[in-house]
Amino acid sequence: MKRPEGFKGAAAASGIKARGLDLALIYSEAPCRAVGLFTSNRIKAAPVLYSRRVLRRGQARAIIANSGCANACTGPQGLEDARAMAAMVEEALGLRRGEVLVASTGVIGRRLPVERVREALPFLIEGLSPDGLDETARAIMTTDTRPKVAWAEVRTRRVKGVVWGMAKGAGMIRPDLATMLCFLLTDLGAEGALLKKSLKEAASRTFNAITVDGEQSTNDTVFLLANGLKGEISPADEGAFQEALLEVTQELARMIVADGEGASTFAEVEVRGARDHREAKKVAMRIANSPLVKTALFGKDPNWGRIMAALGDSGVPVDPNRVSVRINGIEVVREGRGTEVDPGRVREAMAAPSVVIEVDVGLGRGEFRVYTCDLTYDYVKINAEYTT
Amino acid sequence: MKRPEGFKGAAAASGIKARGLDLALIYSEAPCRAVGLFTSNRIKAAPVLYSRRVLRRGQARAIIANSGCANACTGPQGLEDARAMAAMVEEALGLRRGEVLVASTGVIGRRLPVERVREALPFLIEGLSPDGLDETARAIMTTDTRPKVAWAEVRTRRVKGVVWGMAKGAGMIRPDLATMLCFLLTDLGAEGALLKKSLKEAASRTFNAITVDGEQSTNDTVFLLANGLKGEISPADEGAFQEALLEVTQELARMIVADGEGASTFAEVEVRGARDHREAKKVAMRIANSPLVKTALFGKDPNWGRIMAALGDSGVPVDPNRVSVRINGIEVVREGRGTEVDPGRVREAMAAPSVVIEVDVGLGRGEFRVYTCDLTYDYVKINAEYTT
Repeated sequence: MKRPEGFKGAAAASGIKARGLDLALIYSEAPCRAVGLFTSNRIKAAPVLYSRRVLRRGQARAIIANSGCANACTGPQGLEDARAMAAMVEEALGLRRGEVLVASTGVIGRRLPVERVREALPFLIEGLSPDGLDETARAIMTTDTRPKVAWAEVRTRRVKGVVWGMAKGAGMIRPDLATMLCFLLTDLGAEGALLKKSLKEAASRTFNAITVDGEQSTNDTVFLLANGLKGEISPADEGAFQEALLEVTQELARMIVADGEGASTFAEVEVRGARDHREAKKVAMRIANSPLVKTALFGKDPNWGRIMAALGDSGVPVDPNRVSVRINGIEVVREGRGTEVDPGRVREAMAAPSVVIEVDVGLGRGEFRVYTCDLTYDYVKINAEYTT
Repeated sequence: MKRPEGFKGAAAASGIKARGLDLALIYSEAPCRAVGLFTSNRIKAAPVLYSRRVLRRGQARAIIANSGCANACTGPQGLEDARAMAAMVEEALGLRRGEVLVASTGVIGRRLPVERVREALPFLIEGLSPDGLDETARAIMTTDTRPKVAWAEVRTRRVKGVVWGMAKGAGMIRPDLATMLCFLLTDLGAEGALLKKSLKEAASRTFNAITVDGEQSTNDTVFLLANGLKGEISPADEGAFQEALLEVTQELARMIVADGEGASTFAEVEVRGARDHREAKKVAMRIANSPLVKTALFGKDPNWGRIMAALGDSGVPVDPNRVSVRINGIEVVREGRGTEVDPGRVREAMAAPSVVIEVDVGLGRGEFRVYTCDLTYDYVKINAEYTT
């Protein structure tokens, strides 16, 4: 594992959750350019509102994040608490005002116990170390079953640096919502505009192309911090940087879906031949979110009728007679009609831990790929049995 | 139970399904004005395409419907089979061409065994009787656990008639899709335009306001046949007729949701205070289809954060600070923030077999009510374990 120069992390069990790590601190020795992406949910948690403001200046030095409490639907008091959490980190680390980003995940509607953060801070700061970065991935886990960390190198003739990232998954938070948090760190430097563009592009092909259950939380947050200790990215190096960023986000996105709540099967839905990219995405998302397709994935049911019905219901005009569908390489639909393939063969292919559904709509060149997982007893269990 | 004058029905076990009733015939002694509504899925089954054509003339005398095979994704052959099924009924009953409507529900992608229909027809026709109408509701059941029949009287100073209806539910078909079929019969008469208007209005408040899992099948069909044996509806009687039609469709819609696949809890989501009707519907549907809200209903979890997050993710602009939420009458959110109500009290209220979620968005006068049900182990079981 390579980590980016100049970044340190630490985690603590502060008592916000009944037990276990629940607080993470990330710190950069040098000032960073910082950009972020947030939930498009109209109900935005206080840390989202606060951090969005911080990022208007485009700079940050640290991230403080907690699990166990979303600080959402908490009104002006919630915003006050998010600000207080940032302020105590600024003070403890001797930073200027507005240099600390905040993220939270957990139960909606409860007040954030900021005193727990204050009490845990000295321990956190003492523990800051490069290795500690890995611990931060553990501290923000909720129903995730494993921490998610990925990295890639950027190597060109001019610079050599690292893009490192960690995420918590779209497994829903006991007892609340699927929140996705992702913090990306690099020891390269770049203009804010380039960082923003690269992050948006990577997210559109990764985090915005995964779905566990179609839900979107009030707290979804992606931060990208670049401290530039290994040099500035020149225009000629942009491609290499974007590739590394895509690699890291893609790996994290796959980990999130594979660790989706109750998931037993990982699936890729690849749509081709749509009139454009937008329509391809609409069709792919409709299929990937279909409860019937997802239960068929769980049951290893070679029931392509469910794929066709979801496809037809996506709101995108399609011509049924041009549609073809493959499941793990086996053609099951050609020109809108079932092929004579043996269902037993398809069922066998679907028993693999990973299933690829390819859909060709036959109208144009638009394509999109979505990662998803199956809908299982455990999904219902996790979200119905564990109550507040 | 009152039945409409001049209508007869019969059911048979023709062998399209491995066992049990699978074929229904409805016949009117007098010619009927006929209108229909069909799935908006772009992939439409052959019987939908065929019956839509029949209805262009606005008349019909009979309906032949089968379960066990959807006759969808079957190409030109499928359309030929639907036409053949209608033609053999026309011949056997001595009707003219284009007087028979067709509906199918069942597995997608298999050819309809029309010979089974031909063999069963003599038996069906011999069995035609007013009482037999009730049996037709049984013949088109799939994963429904009970037949669904409802009726209402129209009584004014000028006419006295009956509106009668039967439906099969949005329980999904083993192993396929939620198909809703509904046949409405009345012994009153009316212009096609009035019938169409009344049916659309009733459907928008009932069948288009229910959701089990957000899926829409390739075969959804609603027919309304009016034989006029009890007199024509005058303009002054329109209101009474529409009321009766609404009553019948509302009862059938409730039955469909209460019998949704694996459902253990019936829920109404009532949205008020939206800027208009359309936005109220969007918010209500988003909440009613949320897997997290539906698993919370199953788990009796007083977790209103899930309702807020679904609400915020509906695509409708809302102001969180104006939102209030009640669960079975108990206010849990006021001005976007949790009230201090005891969660135990809410959990107790949610243990009722029927839960009402009221959401006031606080922006205008738009309202909409959706019927839905919970997401349970049995939903996953029905749709994952029973494979083709």
